[in-house]
Amino acid sequence: MTSSTIAPTTRDDRFERGMAVLEAVDGRSGQRVLDALADVSPELGNQVVSWAFGEMYARPQLAPRDRQLVTLGILTALGGCEAQLDVHVNASLNVGLTREEIVEALLHAAVYAGMPRALNATFAAKKVFAERGLLTSTSPGSEIDHEGAGTR
Amino acid sequence: MTSSTIAPTTRDDRFERGMAVLEAVDGRSGQRVLDALADVSPELGNQVVSWAFGEMYARPQLAPRDRQLVTLGILTALGGCEAQLDVHVNASLNVGLTREEIVEALLHAAVYAGMPRALNATFAAKKVFAERGLLTSTSPGSEIDHEGAGTR
Amino acid sequence: MTSSTIAPTTRDDRFERGMAVLEAVDGRSGQRVLDALADVSPELGNQVVSWAFGEMYARPQLAPRDRQLVTLGILTALGGCEAQLDVHVNASLNVGLTREEIVEALLHAAVYAGMPRALNATFAAKKVFAERGLLTSTSPGSEIDHEGAGTR
Amino acid sequence: MTSSTIAPTTRDDRFERGMAVLEAVDGRSGQRVLDALADVSPELGNQVVSWAFGEMYARPQLAPRDRQLVTLGILTALGGCEAQLDVHVNASLNVGLTREEIVEALLHAAVYAGMPRALNATFAAKKVFAERGLLTSTSPGSEIDHEGAGTR
Amino acid sequence: MTSSTIAPTTRDDRFERGMAVLEAVDGRSGQRVLDALADVSPELGNQVVSWAFGEMYARPQLAPRDRQLVTLGILTALGGCEAQLDVHVNASLNVGLTREEIVEALLHAAVYAGMPRALNATFAAKKVFAERGLLTSTSPGSEIDHEGAGTR
Amino acid sequence: MTSSTIAPTTRDDRFERGMAVLEAVDGRSGQRVLDALADVSPELGNQVVSWAFGEMYARPQLAPRDRQLVTLGILTALGGCEAQLDVHVNASLNVGLTREEIVEALLHAAVYAGMPRALNATFAAKKVFAERGLLTSTSPGSEIDHEGAGTR
Repeated sequence: MTSSTIAPTTRDDRFERGMAVLEAVDGRSGQRVLDALADVSPELGNQVVSWAFGEMYARPQLAPRDRQLVTLGILTALGGCEAQLDVHVNASLNVGLTREEIVEALLHAAVYAGMPRALNATFAAKKVFAERGLLTSTSPGSEIDHEGAGTR
Repeated sequence: MTSSTIAPTTRDDRFERGMAVLEAVDGRSGQRVLDALADVSPELGNQVVSWAFGEMYARPQLAPRDRQLVTLGILTALGGCEAQLDVHVNASLNVGLTREEIVEALLHAAVYAGMPRALNATFAAKKVFAERGLLTSTSPGSEIDHEGAGTR
Repeated sequence: MTSSTIAPTTRDDRFERGMAVLEAVDGRSGQRVLDALADVSPELGNQVVSWAFGEMYARPQLAPRDRQLVTLGILTALGGCEAQLDVHVNASLNVGLTREEIVEALLHAAVYAGMPRALNATFAAKKVFAERGLLTSTSPGSEIDHEGAGTR
Repeated sequence: MTSSTIAPTTRDDRFERGMAVLEAVDGRSGQRVLDALADVSPELGNQVVSWAFGEMYARPQLAPRDRQLVTLGILTALGGCEAQLDVHVNASLNVGLTREEIVEALLHAAVYAGMPRALNATFAAKKVFAERGLLTSTSPGSEIDHEGAGTR
Repeated sequence: MTSSTIAPTTRDDRFERGMAVLEAVDGRSGQRVLDALADVSPELGNQVVSWAFGEMYARPQLAPRDRQLVTLGILTALGGCEAQLDVHVNASLNVGLTREEIVEALLHAAVYAGMPRALNATFAAKKVFAERGLLTSTSPGSEIDHEGAGTR
Repeated sequence: MTSSTIAPTTRDDRFERGMAVLEAVDGRSGQRVLDALADVSPELGNQVVSWAFGEMYARPQLAPRDRQLVTLGILTALGGCEAQLDVHVNASLNVGLTREEIVEALLHAAVYAGMPRALNATFAAKKVFAERGLLTSTSPGSEIDHEGAGTR
């Protein structure tokens, strides 16, 4: 048990700790969610920061990269979480997953959650890749077969 | 058992009874759904009115305010029901839930349905609050702490 | 904002506050869940107590009775939550919902989540009612019509 | 519009019409559900009979066999509906779907709802087939290849 | 077992077989999905074609019309699959389901998946019907009663 | 693209390739599922082996350990997949995830899928850990605080 969980903390302490994690993982996407919550449910914003990031995500028992694989699986399976997939595909890239690994994780999801969920998540990821300039060209060694036979 | 459930009724009787409940609860939002259904599935419109409102919602065993709390929980958990949340956040306000109670119900939903569902529902509610002029200022005693300590 | 959210607290403080809420709401059902978690995921038990009950459920913005209506809606809609419905039907009775209101809330859920979800939740509730001796006789004025005509 | 929807009817009339449909489709499985509801939520039983069967299932716009294909798809996708799949695999056989068609429908569901949902539904169907003596031997021409090459 | 499942095939063979099925069932809608996948996850496109259509949909054990009834049920129940419903309402019309049967299948879904899912699917179908000119007039014998009594 | 995807293969070739992956990943749990499918839907068994494992899981673009993190997330979020969680918690241990990482992944899921889904998945994992002798004692340094203060 780390000292941070034993020492007394205020809500503000816990919010600050969460913001540090949120910024490292989500960058600007997370802040946009908080801003949008400010006039309707500031406490939901507080819980996302203080609890979800400061208390849960910050735990050292699983690396951020691994947390993102779990999260991509959950958000794909839930469906209707395109906004959250936008944040978490960005976060996945931020913590070290490659575009190829993310795409493969969503392909893998087709087996367990079905084709529609995998398709929706893949298109959410495509939007993020495009915004970050990761769709401009197909890298050598990708599955794209320029002879046209294996483009599938 | 009320006389209305014993006396013979026609489909038209039941539709009329449902419309009275629908109008009291949903106001214009419900009517817009019926209009949109008229040229594709009028029978679905009929069932929403006659059965969902006339036969189920109208039952006196649970107050409209309580029905809306249950409904907010269901629609949040299902996901992908932003259109229905629009109707039912309006309905919740119409039958006496306050903005603060609705926001808190959706915050509470984070515990059982997870953060993404709670966030999506809260943003659906924000849209309704904005349309009804309920976001213009932060009321005194709200969680917004202008000294900056508890804004979260 | 209450002093409890401003004053510095330790994890133990927050756990204790959560246990007080959990015991008031869930009674023994909640403790059984904690016991079952102790040797596999004590931190999940901690989060159920400290966060779900101590930080979220304890908020005064929504009465426990109202929280239970939302929770019944969520658990019914999610499906596969029979174990949680067992805990929360008990909790609903503990915080003042009547058997009749619970049954009606689950009936209401049929409109929004479909008949199978309503049926599964109703049978989960029946198990709790039976354990608490609430199924032994049909109260006068219930919908049971002993002449057999209106049993439906 | 048939006369039955124009003529005034009582709740009892509608219940009787629903029971006739329920018995034709579900046989004893449906009755068991009603019996189990009698002491906890007779109104849910009434709605299953009067509305779900008497008013919705009874509509001539879609044949019972076709309704069952839709229902198998829904129950498989929802998950956690093993009890309802038991009733509806029985119903599917009662209204003319063959064992082979049911198995294929659930296999087809793997594409859209993923392997876990397809597996759970297939095992629910297996239970019904076993109870009705439809698993005792593999019919000639089935996919079982006794030479061992195509058992998969 | 058909020869096509015994003879050795390459990935390209299987892709070609799948494209033939996809084109027959989905027409242009399916191709648009493949095009959109080409620069983000060509392998997901390959699996939709080769596996979902070439290997699963192509099986003769269930007619395309019946597969579409199952698929409509699944997509309605999953929720958040409006894009896939667009493709599959088109496909349903292509393989012989009528507009009336599709509308009725989605109405039927209200019983098992609840009103919100049925409404969302019906509006997705309405969009397809409008695009294909199937909403221009109400056919004689439809439920629209111009005297105003049964419009529901 | 590896040679195995270019060379012509028969269904039997693909089944054999899948069985090799399935055995490496799932061990006996996977075989039990296939055995249970043999008399009801051998083709579903074939697809689990040939497609899910032979064609999807076998792809080198994501390590088995990473695939399991995604799969744990999906199965937790779907709900009602206790049987599949049994197989995949075993698989996760087989491909190198530790008990602690699995428990943490399911704890993490509480943030995105809610407490009930996390609890159900954790209890499914507990069953597997018990069967494999991984619950016999609490390791030093675990969160269990024998002084009783921090058992949470």
